[in-house]
Amino acid sequence: MARVGFIGLGVMGYPMAGHLARAGHEVTVYNRTPERAGKWCAEHGGRARPNPREAARDQDMVFCCVGNDDDLRAVTTGPQGAFGAMAPGAIFVDHTTASADIARELAAVAAQTGFGFIDAPVSGGEAGAQNGQLTVMAGGNDADFARARPVIDAYARACTLLGTAGAGQLAKMVNQIAIAGLVQGLAEAIHFGKRAGLDMDEVIGVISKGAAQSWQMDNRAATMSEGRFDFGFAVNWMRKDLAICLDEARRNGAHLPVAALVDQFYSQVQDMGGGRWDTSSLIALLEKK
Amino acid sequence: MARVGFIGLGVMGYPMAGHLARAGHEVTVYNRTPERAGKWCAEHGGRARPNPREAARDQDMVFCCVGNDDDLRAVTTGPQGAFGAMAPGAIFVDHTTASADIARELAAVAAQTGFGFIDAPVSGGEAGAQNGQLTVMAGGNDADFARARPVIDAYARACTLLGTAGAGQLAKMVNQIAIAGLVQGLAEAIHFGKRAGLDMDEVIGVISKGAAQSWQMDNRAATMSEGRFDFGFAVNWMRKDLAICLDEARRNGAHLPVAALVDQFYSQVQDMGGGRWDTSSLIALLEKK
Repeated sequence: MARVGFIGLGVMGYPMAGHLARAGHEVTVYNRTPERAGKWCAEHGGRARPNPREAARDQDMVFCCVGNDDDLRAVTTGPQGAFGAMAPGAIFVDHTTASADIARELAAVAAQTGFGFIDAPVSGGEAGAQNGQLTVMAGGNDADFARARPVIDAYARACTLLGTAGAGQLAKMVNQIAIAGLVQGLAEAIHFGKRAGLDMDEVIGVISKGAAQSWQMDNRAATMSEGRFDFGFAVNWMRKDLAICLDEARRNGAHLPVAALVDQFYSQVQDMGGGRWDTSSLIALLEKK
Repeated sequence: MARVGFIGLGVMGYPMAGHLARAGHEVTVYNRTPERAGKWCAEHGGRARPNPREAARDQDMVFCCVGNDDDLRAVTTGPQGAFGAMAPGAIFVDHTTASADIARELAAVAAQTGFGFIDAPVSGGEAGAQNGQLTVMAGGNDADFARARPVIDAYARACTLLGTAGAGQLAKMVNQIAIAGLVQGLAEAIHFGKRAGLDMDEVIGVISKGAAQSWQMDNRAATMSEGRFDFGFAVNWMRKDLAICLDEARRNGAHLPVAALVDQFYSQVQDMGGGRWDTSSLIALLEKK
C-alpha cells in the first residue's frame, strides 16, 4: 500500500480518492473548499491539509483532478503548489482534462526535480468514478506508469499508456472530437425523425443494429427524444474540452470544421440556460421554437 | 412458395433475387442491362423478361431495387412499367432508397388499382445483401406487410414495419443523417490524432470502449487511418441519400446543419475523384495536401 495525496475532491475526484482509501492506501487530501475535504475525511478516515504543498509532502504518489489548465497550474507550480513538496522519486498523476502543452510543461518541471509526471485524463463520467470503472488515457514514461498503474486500478477498468508526456491529453481530445460530431449527427437524426412523425423508439430500435449504431445512440437516444438532459457530462465542461481541442488543432494543423461548429452550437445551448445539461442537449437547440 | 418478380439486378438486387430463388420462390427478373439478367438466370435458373411490365405479370409479389426516384418511376408507372401489369391483390415491395414522397405517391396509385405497396429501403450494404443479413425498414399497411415479410426474410435478418407509406424511407433517412455527422466526427478525430503523432490503433482500442464508440469506429477507424476507401458504401450513393434527406427536411422544417455541411464535404470528395470511395473517405478531404 502507498502513501498518496489527492488534490481536488470534485464530482470525479471525491469518489476516486474514496476508492484509493478503500483499496488500503493512506490518503491525504486537499480541496479548495475545505468543508468538502472535511466531509471526505469524515467518510473515509483520511487527513486533510490546508494547501496542495502540504498534501503532497512525504507522499509516494500525488493524484490531482481539477477543472482546467489554470487550476492545474495553481495546484502544481503556484504558491503553495504541490510541486514545491514532491519528493525525488515520487510520481504526480494528473487526471484533469487539460491541454497537452501544460502536461509537457509540468512533466519537464517534474523531471528537473527528479519526480515523475503522468497526464492521465479519464472517461466514464461521474458514474464511472463512483463505480471505479473509469478509462484512463495516460502519457508519460514506462517506469512511472508501471509504478502508478496498480494504484490507479482502484478506480479504473482500463488504464493505457499511449505515449510520452501529453499523449493522454491528446487521446482524450480524439475522444471528444469524435463525440462532438457523433452527438450532433444523432441529434439531427432524431430531430428529423420527430418532425417526420416517426415513432423514434421503434426507429432507433431498428437502426441501432446497423452502421448508425453508437454508444450515444444506445444510451442517449431515448432521453434526447424526450428532451431530458438533467444528467451526464455538462455542456460547460464539453466547451472547455473543445476549446483545448481547437487550440491544439491550431498548433498541429488539423482541420476540425464540425467540432468547431458544434462548439458554437454548445455556446448557443449555454445561452438557452443549458450549461449544466448533458452534451446530448444539442437536440434542444434544433427544436428551439 | 410464391411467384415473384424482381426488377433491378444491381449490386444489391442481384444477390437479393438470388436468395429468393434459393428459398424456393419462382423468380422472374428484369434488368436494364439484359446481359446481367441473362447471367443471373444462368446462375439461378429463373426467367428474364424484356421490360418491368412483363416481369410483373401474373406475380404474387414484385420486388424492386433500382437507383433513385427517377429510375423507380420509370420501372413502375412509366411506359412498360410494372404497375401496368400488377394483379389485384398482389404486392409491390420497393427496396430502393428513394424519397418518402414517391413512396406515398406510388402507394396511392397501387391502392387505386387494388394491389399493395411497401416502401422497404435496406441497410447492411453489399455484404448484407450477399449474406442475406439486411435490415429492412418498411412503410405500408399491416396486412400487406404480414404477407410480404416471410418472403423478405430470405435476405433479411430484421424487417420492421415502422408506419404507413413512406415510413420506411423516412427511417432510412434518420439512419443516413446520423451516419453523416458520426463519420465526419470520427474523421476529424482520427485526422487530429494522426497530426498529434498518436498511435491511432492504440488510441482507438482505448476510446472504442467508451462514449465515443460506434459501429463506424469499430469497423472503419483502421481503414480510415490507413487511407483505404476502395470498398463499402459509395460517396455517390450517400450524396443521393443526403439530397433526399435535405429535400424532405425542407418540407418538414427539420434543421440539419451538419448533414448539409457533410453533403458539401462529400461533393468535394467527388471532386477529388472519390465518388466511388466508401463514405469513410471524408478523412481524405481533411488530409488533402
